[in-house]
Amino acid sequence: MKITQYSALLATVIAIPAMAQQWQTLPETPPTPKDNPTTAAKVALGKMLYFDPRFSSTGTVSCNSCHNVMLGGEDNRPVSVGIKGQKGGRSAPTVWNAAYLSVQFWDGREPTLEAQAKGPVTNPIEMGMESHEVLVKQRLQAITGYKPHFEKAFGSGDVVNIDNFAKAIAAYERTLITPDSPYSRYVKGDKKALTTQQIAGMEKFSKIGCGGCHSGGAFAGPEKPLGEGFFMKFPTFTTSNYVSKYNLAEDGGRFEATKKEADKNMWRVPLLLNIALTAPYFHNGAVQTLDEAVRVMAKVQLDKDLSDGDIADIVAFLNSLTGEFPEQTMPRLPATPDSVIADIN
Amino acid sequence: MKITQYSALLATVIAIPAMAQQWQTLPETPPTPKDNPTTAAKVALGKMLYFDPRFSSTGTVSCNSCHNVMLGGEDNRPVSVGIKGQKGGRSAPTVWNAAYLSVQFWDGREPTLEAQAKGPVTNPIEMGMESHEVLVKQRLQAITGYKPHFEKAFGSGDVVNIDNFAKAIAAYERTLITPDSPYSRYVKGDKKALTTQQIAGMEKFSKIGCGGCHSGGAFAGPEKPLGEGFFMKFPTFTTSNYVSKYNLAEDGGRFEATKKEADKNMWRVPLLLNIALTAPYFHNGAVQTLDEAVRVMAKVQLDKDLSDGDIADIVAFLNSLTGEFPEQTMPRLPATPDSVIADIN
Repeated sequence: MKITQYSALLATVIAIPAMAQQWQTLPETPPTPKDNPTTAAKVALGKMLYFDPRFSSTGTVSCNSCHNVMLGGEDNRPVSVGIKGQKGGRSAPTVWNAAYLSVQFWDGREPTLEAQAKGPVTNPIEMGMESHEVLVKQRLQAITGYKPHFEKAFGSGDVVNIDNFAKAIAAYERTLITPDSPYSRYVKGDKKALTTQQIAGMEKFSKIGCGGCHSGGAFAGPEKPLGEGFFMKFPTFTTSNYVSKYNLAEDGGRFEATKKEADKNMWRVPLLLNIALTAPYFHNGAVQTLDEAVRVMAKVQLDKDLSDGDIADIVAFLNSLTGEFPEQTMPRLPATPDSVIADIN
Repeated sequence: MKITQYSALLATVIAIPAMAQQWQTLPETPPTPKDNPTTAAKVALGKMLYFDPRFSSTGTVSCNSCHNVMLGGEDNRPVSVGIKGQKGGRSAPTVWNAAYLSVQFWDGREPTLEAQAKGPVTNPIEMGMESHEVLVKQRLQAITGYKPHFEKAFGSGDVVNIDNFAKAIAAYERTLITPDSPYSRYVKGDKKALTTQQIAGMEKFSKIGCGGCHSGGAFAGPEKPLGEGFFMKFPTFTTSNYVSKYNLAEDGGRFEATKKEADKNMWRVPLLLNIALTAPYFHNGAVQTLDEAVRVMAKVQLDKDLSDGDIADIVAFLNSLTGEFPEQTMPRLPATPDSVIADIN
């Protein structure tokens, strides 16, 4: 074999990892649990609940406060601010396209959006309600204008309850999707949807190994049934200076939920859609720029030192994952009845 | 003159005040200052600014936090909660139809929505920005994604400034109007728009004297040129027990702004549109129900003791002032650039 032939073969071989990545796009609708089919009435109610600050103890924090759908689905903060100025321990994940993930929260401790929605309302740092019972009695049922909306969504009877609260919010969240992006148009055949640099970045993303974890239409790993997560250790190469600089190993990740040794520093692989809009980065929001996030990821996950050029190309590619956000109408919220105003204030 | 004739005459005389009230409706568009004509680009920008919490020092309070357009244009609280859980001194007035008022704030200290919009951002209790200069440099200009929206609304050049910030918000607020209500349809000729009780309440509202101040299409007094307020003393009959019970005289009203003795306890006559949605009532939010608000107003302003039946009828009428809220789309906000995230957090 002549050297030129060998080079040609090598080029093909080298190219294989790049081509090996199945470039996938999102289905037009996300997976939906059988017991909570999406309906217009549920979505409308869920949108009301999502934007209503009265489901926090102080009446000042709504789902949207930290997962701001008018932004990239979070708040561009290292960590969010809950009731009474308290700060959380992890950066708020985006709500956009969360519906495509098979487990929820950074540590994947909940299997569905329904289960997730029940958490922050009673988290003492986030929305601080004493209990689900208090939430239902003193807020959901007390704001009587909600009842007809619950009945429209869930029928008559004792429908103003915590399960339906969570179901409605989850149904709304399943409409918060951006399946269309320059990237997705490119994969579907519009070869002009990406710039030359973005295509170069796409190839490097795959070749360098980012796609080993960040695969699938959401770049959050292979498709899994609801409730089954795709977890990876982060950081993997713990001797990197970045680990101490950005305090990447302190939070035990999934271990904090399960207390299993095997789950130490294991995290749900986060999606990369709209990643350019959701700085700062990582579970603790310690890394401020996307450039630096790419550099750190390559080092602590793949033990690779990327050149500035590689990083610029990959960041250009990641920008192509910014989606088309569907136009949304604002919900109208029922007024607080005068009989319960004193309780909320 | 026989007694029956006298009675008949008396009935006519008594009836005159009721008929004397000119039942007016709102014009389809509110008054607009000549130097800030409403345009679609300004309204779109103003809506973004209105919903953006990053113009508060903590990044947690937006215009909409206290003047919630998804509710009745305020927050159903006695007083609002600003940054760091601080509470203000007066109840947030509704933003809905504020565009029809000729002066702004409870004490009418600002002539236009433009002037009003500059206040809360630097109020240390409300949004707490150090100065307009800091707001412009560290937020408006630092969130670079705003620039094209300012240029679309105001042309090229040094357009990202505090005056245009206020102009855009005011332009948006001029779209927050509810000229259509059961009341307005009734006045325009749809005699089925009100119930019998509401019509009775309408007549009592006028006959008892409420309409002496609460006249005009917004029920906030006669039409005035922008900047000229319609003020009344509240409370007028200061010996009423309600004055101490609800602490009605403590706040000096317009006096606090002007320090003129003549302005003591003078207030801009508040509009009554959507009043059923904006409990609790009065400048200090001390009265929780609309029933009680009507009872107290009759006593402390007109020295009249209303029967429960009168109150029920008037409240029924006031419910007919709840308008049709225009459907609004949510704005999309530009992401915080990674270069300024540390400053906001």
